[in-house]
Amino acid sequence: SRSPGRKQENHKISRELFVLTYGALVAQLCKDYEKDEDVNACLDRMGYSIGIRLIDDFLARSAVKKCRSYSETADIIAQVAFKMYLGVTPSVSCISATGNEFSLILDKNPLVDFVEELPAERASLCYCNLLCGVIRGALEMVHLAAEVSFLQDRLKGDAVTEIGITFLRKPEDRKHRRN
Amino acid sequence: SRSPGRKQENHKISRELFVLTYGALVAQLCKDYEKDEDVNACLDRMGYSIGIRLIDDFLARSAVKKCRSYSETADIIAQVAFKMYLGVTPSVSCISATGNEFSLILDKNPLVDFVEELPAERASLCYCNLLCGVIRGALEMVHLAAEVSFLQDRLKGDAVTEIGITFLRKPEDRKHRRN
Repeated sequence: SRSPGRKQENHKISRELFVLTYGALVAQLCKDYEKDEDVNACLDRMGYSIGIRLIDDFLARSAVKKCRSYSETADIIAQVAFKMYLGVTPSVSCISATGNEFSLILDKNPLVDFVEELPAERASLCYCNLLCGVIRGALEMVHLAAEVSFLQDRLKGDAVTEIGITFLRKPEDRKHRRN
Repeated sequence: SRSPGRKQENHKISRELFVLTYGALVAQLCKDYEKDEDVNACLDRMGYSIGIRLIDDFLARSAVKKCRSYSETADIIAQVAFKMYLGVTPSVSCISATGNEFSLILDKNPLVDFVEELPAERASLCYCNLLCGVIRGALEMVHLAAEVSFLQDRLKGDAVTEIGITFLRKPEDRKHRRN
């Protein structure tokens, strides 16, 4: 009776363990690098390496087909990828007239559960910068160059956490290249 | 239709993301420390810090009551804690006549999905040593001093992965102390 008959969740692990392990990673990098920018860059690089590997898993498990627009891609990232990997679904909006800049708004950031606030001497730290790298790496593997960065961060006192994704080629170019 | 009606899994995240993030952590420590023993010690320390925080989450979510024996404690770790946090259930056996040494055998180690084998120059690395620290830290918070270490590791060519837990006080002492 100690091990209740809960269903097999092979692909899921506890968020708490992940969040605390991620915290240990960030803390280690803060020991390693004096400057916040270096920690941010390192988290982004690590995330990139993760993203270029995670994309295969994502494509296999999501059965997502090729996206026809940046808008559709942004929706898939928010509604399928975030849901699948982090258990949350950010809201998406296009934030440029050119149609290549998107904003993912997280009311709740699952990575910061145990983080109260950033220490004063780490005010420029992008604590969750790994996520930006993951998105950037995964997009690159499906031939979508993008810049990904935090635009707002609740850890820094903003009202929400917002990730900006800027696709670097115009849709026309891409369509042309792919045809 | 892109976001299928899967049930809310607030406490779960994808194992793949965790495994890759953990790999980034170990890789960073291998950059930071030349000696495998130092990496192992660091992973153990990090795990300990995680364990002493994770125990509250565990007690709250598992509703486990006070264990009456080391054997029961070992069972709870394997059947409830491993299941809850890593989605696997190791088998447990008592490996000492004194009744305070236990072995958790993992046929499948969820943390090494993307790891083929250890590099030759890292032959003494206990890749998953964080887990030992987590168990040690969590046990300490419920007043159980223990030594936790890998006895076998598939990454090192062993047939299984085996974690040894040695409780450091005799059951008699403990009973006495608690009464």
